[in-house]
Amino acid sequence: MQKVIFDTDPGVDDAMALAFLARHPSLQVVGVTTVFGNSTIDVTTRNAVYLRDELFDPRVPVAQGAADPIRRKAPAPIGHIHGNNALGDIALPALDSDWRERIDPRSAVRFIIDTVRASPNEINLLAVGPLTNLAAAFQEDPQIQYLLKGVIVMGGAFGYGGALGNISPCAEANISADPDAADIVFASACPVTVLGLDVTQRTIMSHEYLEQFKEGGSGAARLVWDVTRVYEQFHQDSAGVYGIYVHDPSTVAYLIDPSLYACRRGAICVVTEGVAIGQTIQKPADMKVPAAAWDVRTKHSVCVDVRVDDVLELFRRTVL
Amino acid sequence: MQKVIFDTDPGVDDAMALAFLARHPSLQVVGVTTVFGNSTIDVTTRNAVYLRDELFDPRVPVAQGAADPIRRKAPAPIGHIHGNNALGDIALPALDSDWRERIDPRSAVRFIIDTVRASPNEINLLAVGPLTNLAAAFQEDPQIQYLLKGVIVMGGAFGYGGALGNISPCAEANISADPDAADIVFASACPVTVLGLDVTQRTIMSHEYLEQFKEGGSGAARLVWDVTRVYEQFHQDSAGVYGIYVHDPSTVAYLIDPSLYACRRGAICVVTEGVAIGQTIQKPADMKVPAAAWDVRTKHSVCVDVRVDDVLELFRRTVL
Repeated sequence: MQKVIFDTDPGVDDAMALAFLARHPSLQVVGVTTVFGNSTIDVTTRNAVYLRDELFDPRVPVAQGAADPIRRKAPAPIGHIHGNNALGDIALPALDSDWRERIDPRSAVRFIIDTVRASPNEINLLAVGPLTNLAAAFQEDPQIQYLLKGVIVMGGAFGYGGALGNISPCAEANISADPDAADIVFASACPVTVLGLDVTQRTIMSHEYLEQFKEGGSGAARLVWDVTRVYEQFHQDSAGVYGIYVHDPSTVAYLIDPSLYACRRGAICVVTEGVAIGQTIQKPADMKVPAAAWDVRTKHSVCVDVRVDDVLELFRRTVL
Repeated sequence: MQKVIFDTDPGVDDAMALAFLARHPSLQVVGVTTVFGNSTIDVTTRNAVYLRDELFDPRVPVAQGAADPIRRKAPAPIGHIHGNNALGDIALPALDSDWRERIDPRSAVRFIIDTVRASPNEINLLAVGPLTNLAAAFQEDPQIQYLLKGVIVMGGAFGYGGALGNISPCAEANISADPDAADIVFASACPVTVLGLDVTQRTIMSHEYLEQFKEGGSGAARLVWDVTRVYEQFHQDSAGVYGIYVHDPSTVAYLIDPSLYACRRGAICVVTEGVAIGQTIQKPADMKVPAAAWDVRTKHSVCVDVRVDDVLELFRRTVL
């Protein structure tokens, strides 16, 4: 059984990843930590409480995290992508006030530190929003870098197969939302695996694929259909994609079966100023040119290829 | 007949490009302007005078250009790549002092402005070193942006086919040597075509290919063989490449036959500070995400694919 802290800003694809986590028999979510990103911290935390209630044992803790990046303002919510409630405008039950009473009293940072220290070398941290909470946890308690089993990040764009950013020609949304935090996480000694747009934009759930979930057996399946209606429309309008990119659920697929992905090893830096702000740049381990900013850092894994059909089949088989 | 100003820092591949230019019947080099880069400005200008004397009518002007980037120091000469004399350590005749008397009295910037104004819309400027001269010319006389026929740049790395930099994981040497100048050139209204490592590192002259030039018919052919000995060794030692990348001569191939290359249109920005300094980033014209830094700029062409065999055959047929 793999223990998971899911650090998230739900978000449509965050909800899909939670459905994936909830339904897989070998994964145990020991906590959900929230962060600003797809919407404000209030909305993402409310959504996390809702998703916990729908998909998990109500005793699974939800801990609220950062409202803003380390040294910037939070980006505006992206209602045209994730819906005005950041869950694809599905009808949400009356959670308006009482959700605040049903979250963990600890901050996300404290929850991460406590949980990692309580189960050394057992916790997989899946981070699918801005990396603000994890960076703060590493700064508050650097030892947890050595006590995490591993970190799996959805974020960045490394130029594979000509992958561009989705926020600028070179920057992806999660990393852009807090580039300083991302740079702290990639500078850490903890083993990090990164799934960027290079693989997540190649993993596409078509409309026909998603329709399987419409009348699906589980509540999780129906949630996948309901939550993706606005998101699918956005993909069609903005990118001409008839279906949706599989961003956050890809971290769960990697955790279940890393062999679904091919990775490249090498240190990663994040551009924190200027025109390329938010860009993630890996120096491949076999590149001989000296590059001080990279050469002092721990090497991490960036996913550069994916067995798309097998990822889609794993999700389908698990959630349906 | 296409008129060419060749802006260069010879340099081994600069010399090969000059041989290519000299031997092609439809190209007329109206001047050579020099810049620091592969070596100091004194060495690159002396080499330009030598190559002019070997390959062209002695009346073709050589005008000396920038010794340093706009707001940085020149990088150190790269003797291990281009040889200590920057021409692959071939024996150079006694040019030690008199070369200074055989250059044009004008600066490279003045020469470019005068020549472009004298032949409006007829001059192709091929820039295969740091872009310092051209940026200064655009700043001194902005109108020449509209009077050049076109600019063809060897520089940059745009991530195609996973192309990395050769100075850092994301930056190429010519652009890195003066990123501010490159950003000025790419901001210009003049039509610019860029051949970066994406295509030049895919165009490889093998040892066997180069051996054809050893006993070749023309002096230009023999020069190609002689000048590439150190350069070939460097490629083998540093990259395990059994042959050489075709950087600067690719601009000449493009000028002769643009159909050898596939291009992508879009504005280009250069990173001028921070960890990614020297990186070139194009926003494809069909990318819908707003990105102010790019959206205000003229769209240029970046070469993203190349018919390698046809480029090599064109060079062989022309120079041999």
